[in-house]
Amino acid sequence: MNKVNVIEKFAQIDGYWNPAVVGALNGQEVKIVKFKGPFTWHHHDHEDELFYVVKGSFIMELRDKNIELNTGDFLIVPKGVEHRPNAAEEVWVMLFEPASMLNTGNVVNEFTKKTLKHL
Amino acid sequence: MNKVNVIEKFAQIDGYWNPAVVGALNGQEVKIVKFKGPFTWHHHDHEDELFYVVKGSFIMELRDKNIELNTGDFLIVPKGVEHRPNAAEEVWVMLFEPASMLNTGNVVNEFTKKTLKHL
Repeated sequence: MNKVNVIEKFAQIDGYWNPAVVGALNGQEVKIVKFKGPFTWHHHDHEDELFYVVKGSFIMELRDKNIELNTGDFLIVPKGVEHRPNAAEEVWVMLFEPASMLNTGNVVNEFTKKTLKHL
Repeated sequence: MNKVNVIEKFAQIDGYWNPAVVGALNGQEVKIVKFKGPFTWHHHDHEDELFYVVKGSFIMELRDKNIELNTGDFLIVPKGVEHRPNAAEEVWVMLFEPASMLNTGNVVNEFTKKTLKHL
């Protein structure tokens, strides 16, 4: 059992849209990821997803509205809801979600990461 | 679906050792709590628990060692492991754990909160 410093872990992240696992509990995982630019529209059939902004800001685009998230904000996107994160500048985000959830949900494309690094 | 600003939610917290629920997903809950002083020794039979320090620092006392947690650190205490948070000064902590987990685990005493506020 060791503590994890989230800021230090971000220094080990490679590129954008490339989440790494930093913790696991109760069948869930804590992941960290850097966003920049627009992601891909997708949804998760069976999993809710929490986005917590550690540093920076981004827009969560939904089909009916956009939500701006800044440092210290979190948003829970319920299962089934289409979404697309879009970051004008680099932003550091922590995710809480079920273990082994695919980052692009129902879509498989150039953003899909089937294997994640554990930091 | 609305974003949650964690810092703003802390302003609505009453007292110490009194967690409030600020989000729910996948059978888990996000809670925020202010610690000050020593809590009670306890464990959770069936649930792992994540402690993320939003502001301040505290010591997680375990039976075999102490772990100092500062802003930006998190610690996952696995189920079954006895622990006691102890904060020399007020500290703001975010928890991620299964819904309806009792704050004092296997112990019921003056620290026990059977009903939590939802903010």
